[in-house]
Amino acid sequence: MIMGREEVGQRSETVRRANLSAIVRELHLRGPISRSELVAWTGLTRSAIRSLVGDLVAGDLVAEEAAVRLGTPGRPSPLVRLVAENAVVLALEIAVDSLAVATVGLGGDVLWQRRVERLRGHSLLEEIVSDLADLAASARSRRPADETPIGVGVGVAGIVSRVDGLVAFAPNLGWIDVPLGDRLAEALDLRVPVAVANEADLGALAEFRRGAARGADDILYVHGEVGVGGGIIVDGRPLSGIAGFGGEIGHMPINPAGRACRCGSVGCWETEVGEGVLLARAGYPVDGGSAAVDAVLADAAAGRPQALDALREVGRWLGIGLAGLVNVLNPRRVVLGGLFSLIHPFVADRVEEELDRRALAAPRRLVSVVPATLGVDAPLLGAAEMAFDPLLADPAAWLGPRGALVQLESA
Amino acid sequence: MIMGREEVGQRSETVRRANLSAIVRELHLRGPISRSELVAWTGLTRSAIRSLVGDLVAGDLVAEEAAVRLGTPGRPSPLVRLVAENAVVLALEIAVDSLAVATVGLGGDVLWQRRVERLRGHSLLEEIVSDLADLAASARSRRPADETPIGVGVGVAGIVSRVDGLVAFAPNLGWIDVPLGDRLAEALDLRVPVAVANEADLGALAEFRRGAARGADDILYVHGEVGVGGGIIVDGRPLSGIAGFGGEIGHMPINPAGRACRCGSVGCWETEVGEGVLLARAGYPVDGGSAAVDAVLADAAAGRPQALDALREVGRWLGIGLAGLVNVLNPRRVVLGGLFSLIHPFVADRVEEELDRRALAAPRRLVSVVPATLGVDAPLLGAAEMAFDPLLADPAAWLGPRGALVQLESA
Repeated sequence: MIMGREEVGQRSETVRRANLSAIVRELHLRGPISRSELVAWTGLTRSAIRSLVGDLVAGDLVAEEAAVRLGTPGRPSPLVRLVAENAVVLALEIAVDSLAVATVGLGGDVLWQRRVERLRGHSLLEEIVSDLADLAASARSRRPADETPIGVGVGVAGIVSRVDGLVAFAPNLGWIDVPLGDRLAEALDLRVPVAVANEADLGALAEFRRGAARGADDILYVHGEVGVGGGIIVDGRPLSGIAGFGGEIGHMPINPAGRACRCGSVGCWETEVGEGVLLARAGYPVDGGSAAVDAVLADAAAGRPQALDALREVGRWLGIGLAGLVNVLNPRRVVLGGLFSLIHPFVADRVEEELDRRALAAPRRLVSVVPATLGVDAPLLGAAEMAFDPLLADPAAWLGPRGALVQLESA
Repeated sequence: MIMGREEVGQRSETVRRANLSAIVRELHLRGPISRSELVAWTGLTRSAIRSLVGDLVAGDLVAEEAAVRLGTPGRPSPLVRLVAENAVVLALEIAVDSLAVATVGLGGDVLWQRRVERLRGHSLLEEIVSDLADLAASARSRRPADETPIGVGVGVAGIVSRVDGLVAFAPNLGWIDVPLGDRLAEALDLRVPVAVANEADLGALAEFRRGAARGADDILYVHGEVGVGGGIIVDGRPLSGIAGFGGEIGHMPINPAGRACRCGSVGCWETEVGEGVLLARAGYPVDGGSAAVDAVLADAAAGRPQALDALREVGRWLGIGLAGLVNVLNPRRVVLGGLFSLIHPFVADRVEEELDRRALAAPRRLVSVVPATLGVDAPLLGAAEMAFDPLLADPAAWLGPRGALVQLESA
């Protein structure tokens, strides 16, 4: 809470750093903006903005473009934009069916990306790390030879300790307490921080910053795949819990007399809404994977009753669980991602019906349920956003003594 | 995010205000502390601390006491303490069975308090407001005639819109969309802010600052009474949701094939763990109230099987619901308040058993479940804490031009 240390000079340095952070964050989230708009938005003087933007230009994080006239009176104001190529991050994802990589520039421009299929099932850490390192090398080979990412973000379908990148539990991979972050940092050998997080938490972050939850400060992102995960944003900040394990909404007991869950409990929410139970109800093999899900959707589009009934039942349980979470979290928006964005057209009515029936009227009337807009790449884009966070929090730490961009030492 | 406006002078003013806030907050939460300890804790210089404390002394918020020698070398350092009597708040509570009032001084000293019984059942807003105004008058008559509270905090067993103090839903009172905050502000006529919140949210705040959850940043407070409410603290900040309705954990669907709930849904958590179902299982009238709860506890202490079985069943469902919340929130501590702190000795084993069985191992091993330590008064003390928050956030706004404490205008 204390903001200054030791000297008045350092105190105003604190304010300058916070202002640099606010400007870079705004440019990152909203795109290019004129200097006049920055003045209006920040309430700082023209000269203060000129000085702050000047620091960022000297550090090659920002460029100013020819003045644009906006149709308003007065002198035209230079347009301030981030230089995406001068601060890039590497994003990686371990999904159930695929591995993915992206190089993303500051401001959110995806400069290059690739997704490759992976066979479902248990995997050795070394195999996954080796495959991810190959993907990373492939991504880097598409970029200038002297470019080093400023950070690496990794999403994984599992619960992850944020402190050390330890994957505590990933049933799809068969992992318990696996040191993914450390091993990946060694294998990539980039000397930059490697941050690891749960894929649903990252999907939430991406949809919050750039997708269906933009503009809302309290959101719940629900990610369906084999399992069901959640990402929760409270008052603009991710709810991660004390160790990063928060958001495991798939393991709320919702039908304690119901089916056994992979986690060892009985009647968890994912036993009623996950991919396996949808496929079983629709008459497909539980382990049919995305091909079987596509078949169910095709059946439903063709009006086949078994598929429609299966979707309705999943929609009913989806609504029941969401009602509880709406009561607990009072969110503005619920974003359905992964499997749930695919089935949204078939289940939306049932979800709304259960919310009407089971959520308290006051939070119910304030919430809307929408499908994700970033599709399957939401967790990958969220991994990139996570990797930008240290730079967004304190861009001044990245500006060298003469303004040149410097690398943070790996933690 | 932007911290300065317009001029460098105002920027350093921003830092000064933040530092004053940090000092007052520390004194409020930790008690008296020597000036040397403030220097060590803040990292500010001795002269900066002397100046900041001097402002607070001039404003009569703080006093310095004779230097104390701590057994360490060097000059003894003056002890800095808050002047509790110079910034008092009025706390009010509308519980199911009682109304309560307290006058609390800065630092958390309860200067006077009273709790009066109230008949259960629906109540008119005007009756409750009139009773609370009488209690407030009675509290003020015990204090110096020229003392005006700096704020009023009100706890109510219902879900409350934080913005305007509207009670959206309070089934015990029979209230839907009742403007408690506005009416109470009129009736008290104190020209200070009247903040209204849910009693479980306030219980969480009190246990977090002064009770069983002290020292933990991620907590879940579970309050049992006729209904079941929750207060959630995420990374040191209350989870209130977009309108203050968050934390309604009593209305998570947990047994959708179960009992009808007062909220209109079926199988909410409170239908399996609330007072009514405990009494029914133990062979007492559902509406027997606290006398019947006492009888169940006496039966259990005497080893009567029906009471013990009833408590075990409530404990089992308590553990099932907590397992889900531990998975969603990854809290450090779960605090059981109200009814649940009373029954804790009889249900603790079952709760732990269900957590072992149903919570994911990673968050499970990090959480402890403890009874509340502030007892029945936790929500009342939390109401006082809420009323202090504007002062804690910006004490400088309360210091007049010549340092005299000034009243905030009511919002």
